[in-house]
Amino acid sequence: MRELELWRVLGRGSTKFHKGDTVIPLYIPQCGECKFCRNPKTNLCQKIRLTQGKGLMPDGTTRFTCKGKSLFHFMGCSTFSEYTVVADISLAKVDPMAPLDKVCLLGCGITTGYGAAVNTAKVEAGSTCAVFGLGALGLAAIMGCNAAGAARIIGVDLNPDKFKTAQEFGATEVVNPKDHSRPIQEVLVEMTDGGVDYSFECVGNVAIMRAALEACHKGWGTSVIIGVAAAGQEISTRPFQLVTGRTWKGTAFGGYKSVDSVPKLVEEYMKKKLKVDEFVTHTLPFEKINEGFDLMHAGKCIRVVLQL
Amino acid sequence: MRELELWRVLGRGSTKFHKGDTVIPLYIPQCGECKFCRNPKTNLCQKIRLTQGKGLMPDGTTRFTCKGKSLFHFMGCSTFSEYTVVADISLAKVDPMAPLDKVCLLGCGITTGYGAAVNTAKVEAGSTCAVFGLGALGLAAIMGCNAAGAARIIGVDLNPDKFKTAQEFGATEVVNPKDHSRPIQEVLVEMTDGGVDYSFECVGNVAIMRAALEACHKGWGTSVIIGVAAAGQEISTRPFQLVTGRTWKGTAFGGYKSVDSVPKLVEEYMKKKLKVDEFVTHTLPFEKINEGFDLMHAGKCIRVVLQL
Ligand SMILES: [Zn+2]
Ligand SMILES: [Zn+2]
Repeated sequence: MRELELWRVLGRGSTKFHKGDTVIPLYIPQCGECKFCRNPKTNLCQKIRLTQGKGLMPDGTTRFTCKGKSLFHFMGCSTFSEYTVVADISLAKVDPMAPLDKVCLLGCGITTGYGAAVNTAKVEAGSTCAVFGLGALGLAAIMGCNAAGAARIIGVDLNPDKFKTAQEFGATEVVNPKDHSRPIQEVLVEMTDGGVDYSFECVGNVAIMRAALEACHKGWGTSVIIGVAAAGQEISTRPFQLVTGRTWKGTAFGGYKSVDSVPKLVEEYMKKKLKVDEFVTHTLPFEKINEGFDLMHAGKCIRVVLQL
Repeated sequence: MRELELWRVLGRGSTKFHKGDTVIPLYIPQCGECKFCRNPKTNLCQKIRLTQGKGLMPDGTTRFTCKGKSLFHFMGCSTFSEYTVVADISLAKVDPMAPLDKVCLLGCGITTGYGAAVNTAKVEAGSTCAVFGLGALGLAAIMGCNAAGAARIIGVDLNPDKFKTAQEFGATEVVNPKDHSRPIQEVLVEMTDGGVDYSFECVGNVAIMRAALEACHKGWGTSVIIGVAAAGQEISTRPFQLVTGRTWKGTAFGGYKSVDSVPKLVEEYMKKKLKVDEFVTHTLPFEKINEGFDLMHAGKCIRVVLQL
């Protein structure tokens, strides 16, 4: 639901963009200058982090008002709005022929899950993967594992309604932890003769993060946390899990440097190398935004796109 | 203290070794055939793990007796003994000119700490490192960071008596957590403008493992657990630490495939590229083994070598 709209630039204040440019707003910017942007190992540009974290523009102001009161910006984008103001480092200019009601999804979940597999985990051809949570993030991670040539991709979810779509996205097997009395990590270790090469946590639950790590193969398994846990929650495991060769990582926006990468992902979509349409199960008019949230909370959509 | 003696082969039962060969016993073997040995990502040969874990030879027997009772083997080596029996995959044949009372240490701690830096973390030239715990493992990790060309190597220990040696091994700075009221991870993050590129836990304390991870730089910092924690203890942190780009790993025997690597490390020592003599602070006759343990528990030695 976070990716709601794709924008056309109205202008003002930037020499990088012109009126009518087709852009995707980015919750992680790319300034190109900070020490994070200059380091090829990360995409976490910190240029406007402090103000963005407070819901403000880089100059410390807010550009939204309602009945005379200031409103904060949301994650540097504020895309639940007909018009918005964003920093010019928070916009990717994309192919103007791209369908706006589809490629908007490349501003968050699809990119995050896909990049977790291809950038953060660097899934290798022939490997065995497990994806925990088969919502949009998980489906995108499956798509990434598939693109990387994984031989086995095991989808894990408590809701069996998610299995068919997961298989359409490339899952070779699906497992429901409810069907087993043992912990899911034990089930996966047995299914895979020792554990998976790569696992992905796409739920945001610290117990599942542990299971995803412990489902990895001794010696070389890598687990990537994609989901966002509730504040204050902590992950834990026995250190022996790491000492015996497992690696625990995480990812934000799939490791993609945003301004550079989103236009390329749009290109990949235009060349049919990346599924996007398949994520859009519902399109609603902007006024029905709350119905969109209801669908999401009920697990009845993959993604809802709102249109003006 | 674990590396006590270097052995000359007495013979029997293997075509790979001959009487008089100079060997170092290995607590992680290398069979060359199991799926771990065939995978370049790990050194954790599992060929004899089950029996070794039970203190038995691969055939399920024990070869030690005392007053008619069976004694177990220790970690596949049983090096606290004048004679021992080991599997032939648990021996590395090394240069017969190597001084036996020194290179014995390459069978454990030095190799583990050094390899944690050069193999597991893959420390890069110019980087900033922190090493928690300045015993033999930590000194070896410092030596590895130094060999990899790290620009800053920060040694951390509660015991200031360890600082001089750490600096001789290559630490560019030393920090005592007791000198600070804030958590040591905060101190290090401030000292390094955001955190270290690589950190190493060489103590075996889960609170320090957490501190070592959280001392890493957002976006790319990697923390390697080398120490062995007490049974049942768990590591924990907020998942946000990983989602914002830190990597948590561990290592056993420094990631070195043992039979292949130990002879090469002996060569490096013989060419003076690797410090070993400097780790041997005491040499005692075998009968004084308990004095060796006392020295170790009191923190008064780096390593004690026992001789017949
Ligand atoms: Zn930046
Ligand atoms: Zn093996």
